[in-house]
Amino acid sequence: MPNFPKPTPERVPSRGRRRLLGRLAAGGFVASQAAGAAASELLKPLEIAPGSRVPGAPVLDHPYGLPSPHEAQVVRRAARVWPLPGAASSLTPLADLYGTLTPNGLVYERHHNGVPDIDPAQHRLAIHGLVRTPKVFTMDDLVRLPSESRIHFLECSGNTGSEWNGPSGLPVQLTHGLLSCCEWTGVRLSTLLEEVGGLSSAPGAPRGWMLAEGADAAAMTRSLPLDRILDRALVVYAQNGERLRPENGYPLRLIVPGFEGNTNVKWLRRLKVVDAPLETREETSKYTSLLGNGCARQFVFEMDAKSVITRPSPGHRLTTHGYYPITGLAWSGRGTIRKVEVSTDGGATWRDARLDGTVRDRALTAFQADWYWDGGTAAILSRATDSTGYLQPTRAELVAARGLNSQYHYNAIQSWRVEASGEVLNA
Amino acid sequence: MPNFPKPTPERVPSRGRRRLLGRLAAGGFVASQAAGAAASELLKPLEIAPGSRVPGAPVLDHPYGLPSPHEAQVVRRAARVWPLPGAASSLTPLADLYGTLTPNGLVYERHHNGVPDIDPAQHRLAIHGLVRTPKVFTMDDLVRLPSESRIHFLECSGNTGSEWNGPSGLPVQLTHGLLSCCEWTGVRLSTLLEEVGGLSSAPGAPRGWMLAEGADAAAMTRSLPLDRILDRALVVYAQNGERLRPENGYPLRLIVPGFEGNTNVKWLRRLKVVDAPLETREETSKYTSLLGNGCARQFVFEMDAKSVITRPSPGHRLTTHGYYPITGLAWSGRGTIRKVEVSTDGGATWRDARLDGTVRDRALTAFQADWYWDGGTAAILSRATDSTGYLQPTRAELVAARGLNSQYHYNAIQSWRVEASGEVLNA
Repeated sequence: MPNFPKPTPERVPSRGRRRLLGRLAAGGFVASQAAGAAASELLKPLEIAPGSRVPGAPVLDHPYGLPSPHEAQVVRRAARVWPLPGAASSLTPLADLYGTLTPNGLVYERHHNGVPDIDPAQHRLAIHGLVRTPKVFTMDDLVRLPSESRIHFLECSGNTGSEWNGPSGLPVQLTHGLLSCCEWTGVRLSTLLEEVGGLSSAPGAPRGWMLAEGADAAAMTRSLPLDRILDRALVVYAQNGERLRPENGYPLRLIVPGFEGNTNVKWLRRLKVVDAPLETREETSKYTSLLGNGCARQFVFEMDAKSVITRPSPGHRLTTHGYYPITGLAWSGRGTIRKVEVSTDGGATWRDARLDGTVRDRALTAFQADWYWDGGTAAILSRATDSTGYLQPTRAELVAARGLNSQYHYNAIQSWRVEASGEVLNA
Repeated sequence: MPNFPKPTPERVPSRGRRRLLGRLAAGGFVASQAAGAAASELLKPLEIAPGSRVPGAPVLDHPYGLPSPHEAQVVRRAARVWPLPGAASSLTPLADLYGTLTPNGLVYERHHNGVPDIDPAQHRLAIHGLVRTPKVFTMDDLVRLPSESRIHFLECSGNTGSEWNGPSGLPVQLTHGLLSCCEWTGVRLSTLLEEVGGLSSAPGAPRGWMLAEGADAAAMTRSLPLDRILDRALVVYAQNGERLRPENGYPLRLIVPGFEGNTNVKWLRRLKVVDAPLETREETSKYTSLLGNGCARQFVFEMDAKSVITRPSPGHRLTTHGYYPITGLAWSGRGTIRKVEVSTDGGATWRDARLDGTVRDRALTAFQADWYWDGGTAAILSRATDSTGYLQPTRAELVAARGLNSQYHYNAIQSWRVEASGEVLNA
């Protein structure tokens, strides 16, 4: 397949590079089942359809609004049937989303014993252990402290685990959808530790660890190294402008930017400063990674740099030849995204994608690259480089380093196959 | 009332400046009706309440999630009863929101003839008039073009019109809630004009105007000066990550960053390039501002710099003396926010607030200032300065310049009165 010449990076490609759009009957990305429903009119005489002639729906029909019924297929989905309904996950529909933020109704879920129903007036956060003046905070106490709002991604460490043994055939929602990005508002962990008088450990001693515990029936519990999180961890009560959603930790959760999802403990009820990790169930029987040599990686917190093409991706169909933007997301738990490269020939050649908008620390970054689909088969891939210089590995590189026993932290380059029919497959 | 010493601007105030919180029984901002429901436990012996002992709700109970039932009061509301249900508005609950983004379910509504029900497969955008090759675009055509995502505020030009004649007594949702901020995704207007071959006006002629028309039954129609919008206008199909909501223009709307809300035409069906404004109904009988001398200001597009304190604000009650953060929003239709100042003595003295997080072009910016409430009455105010150097005016200055006949573009400094009881009033 001839590869389109490498473009000079710029925010919007010139008309010259999109010229085929004007020459060919255009189509676009459509969901496979809807193919043909929206034939282009570019070559017909200009016909301007009339607007509505009947009054529309009144305001306040929905004091809290919902998506159009035409978008009813854009929902969270589970990748499989789980034996216990509360110990399960549902995934964000990345192929149907735009930009970098996830609407609260579509933020992925992963719970260990379901979503507790918590009355915020009764909820408390205790901070105790190796602190000078242990305290219990009400929600009103917390909202009364100085707050901070920041945009960060959340990714479950099990995200994309489906691909360890090769292409799963699943669409991007089910391979990469344990991934969301929100603006979080709350109090800095460092501010809260000041409120309890600071740490009571001996001067000069290491700052130690902190146990975070949820109020759910699983008592989800993780040990976190204070040195690595104090500059950025938040105890948050709001996401994307409003109070947390029940399934995202209402009324309070921990946000540890860049760390694997489960450490961002939901329904947060307790922070205990300790001098060593407590080896809880979730850091021994779960959330460790068994290597090929039989040893396990433990306390692997940061999510390494990763990217994925969300459009076109499996379930989309290319309806005509010509210009398409290749669009996707990149992120790193260790900093910002420095570069995203895209290949349309299975990784033989790469070119820089445009990074769309603001590149934010430990947040999703959208990218785009121009592509002319000539109607042949193609394999489209993306790879991210983060601010530490780390380059997203191939699957072969990842398996060589980690073996095939790991369930977590799969971040290899993802390839989608484009068929001559326009179908896009994970194969 | 003694004023707290001006703090050195920093992102988070030191514990020293919040010291009263640890000494006094704390309370916080509570909705007036809930006062007393959440007494602090700071002075009690540390009691860590148990977490849940019963399994929680399963995932996928709500494939598209909703807020907690405990947040049922956080909804859009109308400021008055409108004679026609589709020619009305509902406002964003700013006093209950956090950070800078508005969840899609709470983005303000203002329609002239209700919300049309549009099938995106049938929707078309025509671009015609003084362009070389007029065209009609399907939604799939548009999604196939290079896209861009940007965070911008939307403000109705009628926002805060309630205060022209002095304090209305209304809470901030009803005085300032025709204001929202989203991440918008779509195609640059300049890209679309390239797709129709560029303008067909004579070389060197002014670039002229563009008529934008909605598909609603009001056929909402505005003329826009191309020179002032081509560098930043977007034709968008998504907000905050997902497709537009029906009441926000589904499936397509215009976003003209910084311009008054009605020019961001919803349900966009037509863009016609013309050589002069068309003097439509919405720019003659409406959306002009009658001055004191009987002349009207017409085509006043940019929303001038403005700010408002959202917490505490009317409806909140301060439950104990001591430290409170004063939190609010600032924005400008002419660029970024350079500075926000806060006064707690009715405007006699001012101090700089901290700007929280990233300051974005033509987007809401959150601010915070520290305050010790000593239990006396107080008048709390904020004023914004934007990147052009423009300072938000007092009401007296605004009335001196514009008189009392204007309905639109009220952006004066807003004062809230704090009573000794802790009640906060718009008086």
